Amino acid sequence: MDLSNSQPDVERTVGYLGPCGTHSEEIALDLYKEEARRFIPFQSIDGAIRAVENGIVSECVVPIENSLEGPVNITLDTLAHDVNLTIIKEIVWSVRHHLFIKQNTAQIKVIVSHNQALAQCRNYINRCYPGIEIKAVESTAEAACIVANGAQNHAAIGSSRAGQIYGLEAVATDIQDSDRNCTRFVVLSKQSQFISGERCKTSIICQMKGEKPGSLCELLQEFAVRNVNLTRIESRPARTALGEYIFFLDLEGSMAEDKVSSAVTAVQLKSQRFKNLGSFNVAILKNS
Amino acid sequence: MDLSNSQPDVERTVGYLGPCGTHSEEIALDLYKEEARRFIPFQSIDGAIRAVENGIVSECVVPIENSLEGPVNITLDTLAHDVNLTIIKEIVWSVRHHLFIKQNTAQIKVIVSHNQALAQCRNYINRCYPGIEIKAVESTAEAACIVANGAQNHAAIGSSRAGQIYGLEAVATDIQDSDRNCTRFVVLSKQSQFISGERCKTSIICQMKGEKPGSLCELLQEFAVRNVNLTRIESRPARTALGEYIFFLDLEGSMAEDKVSSAVTAVQLKSQRFKNLGSFNVAILKNS
Repeated sequence: MDLSNSQPDVERTVGYLGPCGTHSEEIALDLYKEEARRFIPFQSIDGAIRAVENGIVSECVVPIENSLEGPVNITLDTLAHDVNLTIIKEIVWSVRHHLFIKQNTAQIKVIVSHNQALAQCRNYINRCYPGIEIKAVESTAEAACIVANGAQNHAAIGSSRAGQIYGLEAVATDIQDSDRNCTRFVVLSKQSQFISGERCKTSIICQMKGEKPGSLCELLQEFAVRNVNLTRIESRPARTALGEYIFFLDLEGSMAEDKVSSAVTAVQLKSQRFKNLGSFNVAILKNS
Repeated sequence: MDLSNSQPDVERTVGYLGPCGTHSEEIALDLYKEEARRFIPFQSIDGAIRAVENGIVSECVVPIENSLEGPVNITLDTLAHDVNLTIIKEIVWSVRHHLFIKQNTAQIKVIVSHNQALAQCRNYINRCYPGIEIKAVESTAEAACIVANGAQNHAAIGSSRAGQIYGLEAVATDIQDSDRNCTRFVVLSKQSQFISGERCKTSIICQMKGEKPGSLCELLQEFAVRNVNLTRIESRPARTALGEYIFFLDLEGSMAEDKVSSAVTAVQLKSQRFKNLGSFNVAILKNS
């Protein structure tokens, strides 16, 4: 990590959801371990994303979906409404959560963590700490930091790395509701790319023209008739009125393939709003 | 409201996300104003839903979707995975949020509210209180209660009714990010019904068999070919593995109509998991 005080070279900077000890940081460090990069933590997911849009960093690493809790709404909504960025990589990360206290904490009265982590440990919390006060903060690492700083009777849910960094004691390990708990992260950039390969996906955002019966079906047929597999469809509010939606679609394959680009073009023609988030490779990383 | 100490008559009890002053309570009081009902507040949304399943109350009123923030995940996930209930009514409610303090609060250092309310006022918070500590609690009314009980330098986001009940002072009104902010609530019951009518919808939950290209499209075609309009499609994690989803589908019309029941039956045959949440009327209520 380059911590010198030279002028920041935006081309070599990577933003992530900080502070130190978040899953986003672990992934960023792992992804760029062969390269000289400068890493900059941001207090919020949308802060990290907007930093790419505003040219403060060249790329950022943020979570986009969890296998238990579903989409990270702020990531989807910021991509749809507030910035023009592309996805240049996807990372699938297996998530483990632990419950940490500061040493000599006699009683836990408050559990603090990121919303998604809290939701991913909901069964454990209900079973072991029914009715306890829950406090949501911007990241699991921030939660660990709050506990390390002496917040009374607080416990934090976070990664083992966060526990180590902040010198905390684990009172329970692997408290996630499912051992198949994975989170997808994406690397976002202003640069678009034209890649292909085996583990390649393409993401688009669209809002259909018209609301007649079957309009979503007609749109999906553009993929079906070309034998393009849809790996995910996620609806989010269009923010115009209740009942109006935009769709996030993930497809197998790259825009470099004729069948994918032809299907995407057909969908674009049927959409009143459309964004192509690009084609990218998928990497699977193990949580150490 | 019947507050007598007689044995609770489950058939006449309605659960809601409490405490006093939540939107759920306002809707429950409005819906049953012509009937003698006993109202029971619950600390959490899933607590209210499980109380119906466990026979503690006969019905409950809980939020299911917001026009800005999207689905209320805990409602969808509890309906899909943990209970066997039907929707007997839907209520569309226009939401207004205000920022409240206890009188003579000199400085706001923490903003407390329900997650959805916090998310619905994200732009306001970022603009007026950048970097402020955010605390998520189970309801907007609980947030108002915390502030009323003297939590130092805290402000709560909630409804005007919550502000009145807890004797708080509004420092800013209508702070929601959009004036088109509506929330859909549902009334849940163990009883299924066989209703029809103009403003009638049917909700189903399904997980498709197989993952081949076009399987979602084939499923949606069952509605399209019968001219049944889909008003909503929401994917949620199936909780089996990343990339496996269940779908929540809302259709116009009732199971009492041939075309709807025939489409739903066809979808059920194509699904590995299936639940019919029933047919119900939609009411539009105004926030006073």
